[in-house]
Amino acid sequence: MKPVHVAGAAVHPFGKHRDLNAAELGHRAVRALLDTTGITPDAVDTGFVGSSYGGSLLAQRILQRVGVSGQPVFTVENACASGASAVHLAWQAVASGAAQAVIAVGAENLSGFGGGTLPLTTNDIEIEQGVIMPAAYAMRAQRYLHDFGATVDDLTAVSVKNRANGADNERAHFQREISAQDVAESRPVADPLRLLHCCPNSDGAAAVLLCSEEFAAQLDTPSVRLRASVVRSGTFHTQYRDMTWPDITERTAKAAYAMAGLGPADLDLVELHDAFSIAELLHSEALGLVERGKAYQAVRDGEFDRHGRVAVSPSGGLMSRGHPVGATGTTQICEAYWQLTGQAGALQVPGASVALTHVTGGGIFGVDNGACSVHILTAD
Amino acid sequence: MKPVHVAGAAVHPFGKHRDLNAAELGHRAVRALLDTTGITPDAVDTGFVGSSYGGSLLAQRILQRVGVSGQPVFTVENACASGASAVHLAWQAVASGAAQAVIAVGAENLSGFGGGTLPLTTNDIEIEQGVIMPAAYAMRAQRYLHDFGATVDDLTAVSVKNRANGADNERAHFQREISAQDVAESRPVADPLRLLHCCPNSDGAAAVLLCSEEFAAQLDTPSVRLRASVVRSGTFHTQYRDMTWPDITERTAKAAYAMAGLGPADLDLVELHDAFSIAELLHSEALGLVERGKAYQAVRDGEFDRHGRVAVSPSGGLMSRGHPVGATGTTQICEAYWQLTGQAGALQVPGASVALTHVTGGGIFGVDNGACSVHILTAD
Repeated sequence: MKPVHVAGAAVHPFGKHRDLNAAELGHRAVRALLDTTGITPDAVDTGFVGSSYGGSLLAQRILQRVGVSGQPVFTVENACASGASAVHLAWQAVASGAAQAVIAVGAENLSGFGGGTLPLTTNDIEIEQGVIMPAAYAMRAQRYLHDFGATVDDLTAVSVKNRANGADNERAHFQREISAQDVAESRPVADPLRLLHCCPNSDGAAAVLLCSEEFAAQLDTPSVRLRASVVRSGTFHTQYRDMTWPDITERTAKAAYAMAGLGPADLDLVELHDAFSIAELLHSEALGLVERGKAYQAVRDGEFDRHGRVAVSPSGGLMSRGHPVGATGTTQICEAYWQLTGQAGALQVPGASVALTHVTGGGIFGVDNGACSVHILTAD
Repeated sequence: MKPVHVAGAAVHPFGKHRDLNAAELGHRAVRALLDTTGITPDAVDTGFVGSSYGGSLLAQRILQRVGVSGQPVFTVENACASGASAVHLAWQAVASGAAQAVIAVGAENLSGFGGGTLPLTTNDIEIEQGVIMPAAYAMRAQRYLHDFGATVDDLTAVSVKNRANGADNERAHFQREISAQDVAESRPVADPLRLLHCCPNSDGAAAVLLCSEEFAAQLDTPSVRLRASVVRSGTFHTQYRDMTWPDITERTAKAAYAMAGLGPADLDLVELHDAFSIAELLHSEALGLVERGKAYQAVRDGEFDRHGRVAVSPSGGLMSRGHPVGATGTTQICEAYWQLTGQAGALQVPGASVALTHVTGGGIFGVDNGACSVHILTAD
């Protein structure tokens, strides 16, 4: 496989953009990417757009408007991992030598649904019975607190940390710190989760340029190496499921570590799928950042702070940035790119040279999560 | 690039299956594929599922139920070319050496919409103004008849031919011949098109196994070579558009012929996107099967008959098989596979050794069609 570089990144700020559909959001992110990198649309070999709710031919709607017109483009769906799946397929195209330059985009407008929980498919037996996302994560939280001695305050600490990080991120949906009291006073969603234990539904888009070493060398923008790109699906089984152990994250991360020749101890920062505060505890353990059942102590001890042992969601995570489903995985790559090229400004993790991004999502019958993706990037 | 083989094919018969959602239809097709080829789910490296309306995580919903569980799987959308795009990405995975065996699926249930024209996106300026599919093809038909001296009878001849082919296809939505009089007496849709000039909205699914030469050699099923797999998007422009020349088909086919080292004269059969009868005339010309403006004469002269110079849609085409959007491109590969391995039964084109499949679709602002895919397969 050939080396794959990330040589440009752009985000349309997340938030409530009721008047901007997914195509418009995506278009703005890609236009910014082309402006930043200086590449011409003709130089793009192919494009992948991740989205869950963007509708038919979203890839064409986004890319044709910036002049990427005629080339093969594809819209990819993998629930919350849609944007990361777009990056993965772009990576595959470059790694295989089939393409020199590929644009990967994530774009989503969730405001159109008018709020509330995400509209999930009605032909899934678990969802029909009420296992919507907040309910599933609440069950996981209850079990985690029971098994490992953590408290609701530990869940709250994740929200407080990530909202503090996001306060410095001009691309985030929420750019304001919150206190533990704010969390405690926010309205209950699914016991023990309160509103501020949950990420918001957002609208937004992100775009990255993946390219060969030779292509990257011709650009004026700095580039980083994409050392691993892995997607896995949940395994199907109908027996006992350990809700505190997201094995899909463990399997995906293991494959990514093997591909990159790196391990958890090498990571300077992790952008993780904290759709709910409990998710940071579960997934940081499954990623191997900390021993099982100890993540809440790591948060307490500041190990996951921006200046801690390993910065977890220095950008603010889904909790601050928001979660426009298909855009999330792509945005994480952007945040990692800026960190590794020293362009993260107020968010900068000192000396960041290895980053991991992680998304997982989409619960369906018989599995923990539908899809998971892990990417590992290095400064050189 | 490594040689890519198609080593198995299965179709869930198309038709009205209101009680079977896309996941169930796809699941049945894949189960039949595994039964036919004898491969175990563990041997599958990855899966791609094409669908326009199947919903989130359709790939997982289909593949996990047959035991393809844990592997990376992706749902791909490219309007009517969704299934063909799934085949293309599967081809890329095998051709690049990244995978040994990949399942590509197309699955769709359109009955859920309750009939009428396809629900298209409402944020497209042309669609908002009434350029739904039957209207677009009616305009193309009017112009073709005007420019080249064809008559409505020539459009009718396409329907009669393809419905006669489909009468022998047990997988088709319609398995009954029709007469020119039937067409003339069917209700008007968009002048000059009548109902029997249009393919039906259908429900159905298809699955194919794409694999390496070594993998194919281990199977008991016969295999064919996938010589070319090309996807292109429509080019964006807002000036005069020649509605009788689908340049997207010409561009895609040219790239496919170059990749395969074959030309139109080498083809024994073509499965073509006859969503409306006029489409066979337009696309057969753009594929180079016949000179521009002469396709209607070729149909008159029987050149496109099953025993003619080049069989066009010997399976019955979309006109007979029906058109469950995402499933169409995958089904065409199945039909080509059966023809090239001598398993086409009553549909068999004598001595078939080279086949081309073509889908195009999804009109959006400023382009003729959103996406197009051409595949070329050979018996060895």
